[in-house]
Amino acid sequence: MLTAKNPNESDREADAASAGEVQPMLIEIDHIAIAVHDLGDAIDSYRDAFGAVVDHREVVDSDGVEEALLKVAESYVQLLAPTRDDSPVATYLEKKGEGLHHIAYRVDDCATVLEHLKAQGHRVIDEVPRPGSRGTTVAFVHPKAIHGTLIELVQE
Amino acid sequence: MLTAKNPNESDREADAASAGEVQPMLIEIDHIAIAVHDLGDAIDSYRDAFGAVVDHREVVDSDGVEEALLKVAESYVQLLAPTRDDSPVATYLEKKGEGLHHIAYRVDDCATVLEHLKAQGHRVIDEVPRPGSRGTTVAFVHPKAIHGTLIELVQE
Repeated sequence: MLTAKNPNESDREADAASAGEVQPMLIEIDHIAIAVHDLGDAIDSYRDAFGAVVDHREVVDSDGVEEALLKVAESYVQLLAPTRDDSPVATYLEKKGEGLHHIAYRVDDCATVLEHLKAQGHRVIDEVPRPGSRGTTVAFVHPKAIHGTLIELVQE
Repeated sequence: MLTAKNPNESDREADAASAGEVQPMLIEIDHIAIAVHDLGDAIDSYRDAFGAVVDHREVVDSDGVEEALLKVAESYVQLLAPTRDDSPVATYLEKKGEGLHHIAYRVDDCATVLEHLKAQGHRVIDEVPRPGSRGTTVAFVHPKAIHGTLIELVQE
């Protein structure tokens, strides 16, 4: 953290003191993104396996993906397929195959959370919030920042 | 699917007909599990980054893991660290590093959903439901079954 630790204190105590009062920022798991090769096949699989149906479907040209959102309570399962070979999701599929791609947390104010993370020294992918699908404002935090997980912040 | 397709019908229509009426089975994203090396470190990271605090912490001896659940609305982020070298999570960390490990869906009746998936020919890890953490009943579906994702069914 930002302050030198007193060797007489436990790490946890020192961290808590230096972290101060971080208010709860995560108001919902907005979605879990699952990278798939074929969006139609994946939609069929989730319908047949779980009776899950598509709530929203959208091509996001800037990211080179097409997504299908399956609503689960107040969250979504986001099936995510590449629309071109140079999209990050295409690269992901080539390297790792189909599977869990990122987790998105719904937050009240994307810019505030992003600035908080940057101020803590966390590496981000989006330096400022940008438009996401279904009219949201989003920002991605780098997977190296917080325990290997690609995290998206979503403001509705 | 199980019936021959009429070439005059679209694939989707044929699939819908053969799939019959699969009722919606997913009532909540119960949790997203994130494999981490050190549970204390990960808990500190989520507290400092997002103000997320531990709602429940438990060692699950049978799985060789210790988990910390951070509550986000009606769902949890499950930080998951191995307690011994031969636990599946230890193997996962060695092969893939820290990151998204599995998605758990809350269902009304774990046994019914599991039998439905087995009847559809899906490969499962648990042939019958078993006790999970915090008094739940759980079953894991094999990651090869549904688009590369390790899926857990959770009944509270």
